[in-house]
Amino acid sequence: MLNQVPFVSVHNMMRLVNGLGVERVLTDLAGYVEEDFRRWQAFDKTPRVAAHSADGVIELMPTSDGISYGFKYVNGHPKNLREGLQTVTAFGVLAEVATGYPRLISEMTILTALRTAAASAVAARALAPAGVRTMAVIGNGAQCEFQALAFKAILGVDRLRLYDVDPVATRKATRNLARYGFEIVEAASVAEAVEGAGIVTTVTADKRNATVLHDNLVGPGVHINAVGGDCPGKTELSADILRRADIVVEYAPQTRIEGEIQQLAPDHPVTELWEVLTGAKPGRTGRDRVTVFDSVGFAIEDFSALRYVHDRVSEHAGFVEQLDMIADPDEPRDLLGMLHRAETTGQVAA
Amino acid sequence: MLNQVPFVSVHNMMRLVNGLGVERVLTDLAGYVEEDFRRWQAFDKTPRVAAHSADGVIELMPTSDGISYGFKYVNGHPKNLREGLQTVTAFGVLAEVATGYPRLISEMTILTALRTAAASAVAARALAPAGVRTMAVIGNGAQCEFQALAFKAILGVDRLRLYDVDPVATRKATRNLARYGFEIVEAASVAEAVEGAGIVTTVTADKRNATVLHDNLVGPGVHINAVGGDCPGKTELSADILRRADIVVEYAPQTRIEGEIQQLAPDHPVTELWEVLTGAKPGRTGRDRVTVFDSVGFAIEDFSALRYVHDRVSEHAGFVEQLDMIADPDEPRDLLGMLHRAETTGQVAA
Repeated sequence: MLNQVPFVSVHNMMRLVNGLGVERVLTDLAGYVEEDFRRWQAFDKTPRVAAHSADGVIELMPTSDGISYGFKYVNGHPKNLREGLQTVTAFGVLAEVATGYPRLISEMTILTALRTAAASAVAARALAPAGVRTMAVIGNGAQCEFQALAFKAILGVDRLRLYDVDPVATRKATRNLARYGFEIVEAASVAEAVEGAGIVTTVTADKRNATVLHDNLVGPGVHINAVGGDCPGKTELSADILRRADIVVEYAPQTRIEGEIQQLAPDHPVTELWEVLTGAKPGRTGRDRVTVFDSVGFAIEDFSALRYVHDRVSEHAGFVEQLDMIADPDEPRDLLGMLHRAETTGQVAA
Repeated sequence: MLNQVPFVSVHNMMRLVNGLGVERVLTDLAGYVEEDFRRWQAFDKTPRVAAHSADGVIELMPTSDGISYGFKYVNGHPKNLREGLQTVTAFGVLAEVATGYPRLISEMTILTALRTAAASAVAARALAPAGVRTMAVIGNGAQCEFQALAFKAILGVDRLRLYDVDPVATRKATRNLARYGFEIVEAASVAEAVEGAGIVTTVTADKRNATVLHDNLVGPGVHINAVGGDCPGKTELSADILRRADIVVEYAPQTRIEGEIQQLAPDHPVTELWEVLTGAKPGRTGRDRVTVFDSVGFAIEDFSALRYVHDRVSEHAGFVEQLDMIADPDEPRDLLGMLHRAETTGQVAA
């Protein structure tokens, strides 16, 4: 049925993820993300198209590997939280380049949370010191637990040190993570949280240029997974940390505008993740170096996620609804004729 | 239900259009298009974002008036026709700028055909000599009948002179239009078709720089509605016609790349449709002048069309399906908790 487009609803995404298990999904997604970053040259890297307003932003993030085309619709409205609405909602479409026909529409609010964590773990696997088991997570909002689970599934991290300015958020994270076998410390400060942690994940929702992590708290060899700073005017790390670190980014032209490195000179050297993953360049240049993955979220990660969901729902029937979205006249030039012929059917169905 | 997004399927779009009547829909759409062009300054005019491949193009066309945000996904794959697929398929989304939440998803293959014809009629109402009743239509593909019906409903055109290189297409158009009370001549050549016609619509599918309409066939006072030339390397009019005409376009930066005027110098004077509609500039500068509406299709027309459908389906319940597309955790920071709570529900529903 070429005129039907499979749709993965929020309900079915939850069934799919719960059915496979969150850790399994994160591991699989990491594989898809790494595979796509390794074939970086195959992708169209269009900048995201943003419509800014006083209250937030609506963005379209398209990319293509020449076989499939994907885009994500995503908004960011911090004030939504006060009205009981989601700050970020998202959906995405995967289409066939050869015909231009959409092949999948999917909710992406949950999927974005999963792919963000998977991408962080892919970068950490290439950058963090081997054998790290302890991670600090500064900021215990919606993304916190997904980061923890991805790092457990992919790197074997099983000791967490959590901190948030709001202790309610930390307790929520601890409660949600209870079943996964972590050893969890709820820290009273950032300084306490980072004690003995080989990986520090910063994922706060602070919308300003804040210094969540000060330079004096970061010891030699630590890997920083900086996830929360992701738009102009929103950063989390002290610039001093960045100046002495090996910095890895998704796509430099975008990260220089949106990432932690907006604090640095526009020509400050950074390495792109695909270069590290393909071995073209080293990520970590020494055992005692500090590494930073300055993550802002990139269209290829969404493409990988849509590709993953498309593969899974093709294997497991029953996770999609078919949307009647593509007009399909018997003769392509006869669109009005199709409307006329639908008069009877329309009345019957109405 | 804020997490549900109303979806207008192809089936429901046909029910809606047949229920209201095609001519009524075209008239209403023309009103929405004119209203939006008159408040031109209110809109974000982002260029369309195109992904080109050997076989075609996939485009995203976003715009916003500060209250609503809309975008259309549309492909163009000429070779699809040979495989029994649509050359152009489209769908669109209307969202609320204040929250970023999608408010409507709609099929747009049919809707694009309607809005293109409505926009042509809006331009012709402002440009064609008063009282014209005869229109030639060169190219009798899918768009032909919609053009005819829009010009009948909005300008009172009731005599048609049809020509296509493929007589099968012309017969199809005549058959489809039989019920609407036109006097129709099937012409054997372009020259025969344009005889006595005050409006000439060119809407061929020729993908090259073709000269469908030669200069010597265009008499004084004629309005040319040039719809078929709409991408780089695809034009229909002799450049000589353009050089002596008053040219009106939707959005000059886009039309200079995609429209008939790609044949002219980049600084050749043109007027934008909104300037004519608001009275800021004249469109037709004299009774004996030739006017050309060089139409390529613009994001605001799609926005008007989505706005129209949104208003109609709000009035007439039963034309939408609700899509469960926006994740809605009880506590926005508790996305993993939402997944956990869905484990039971998921199994029950599965």
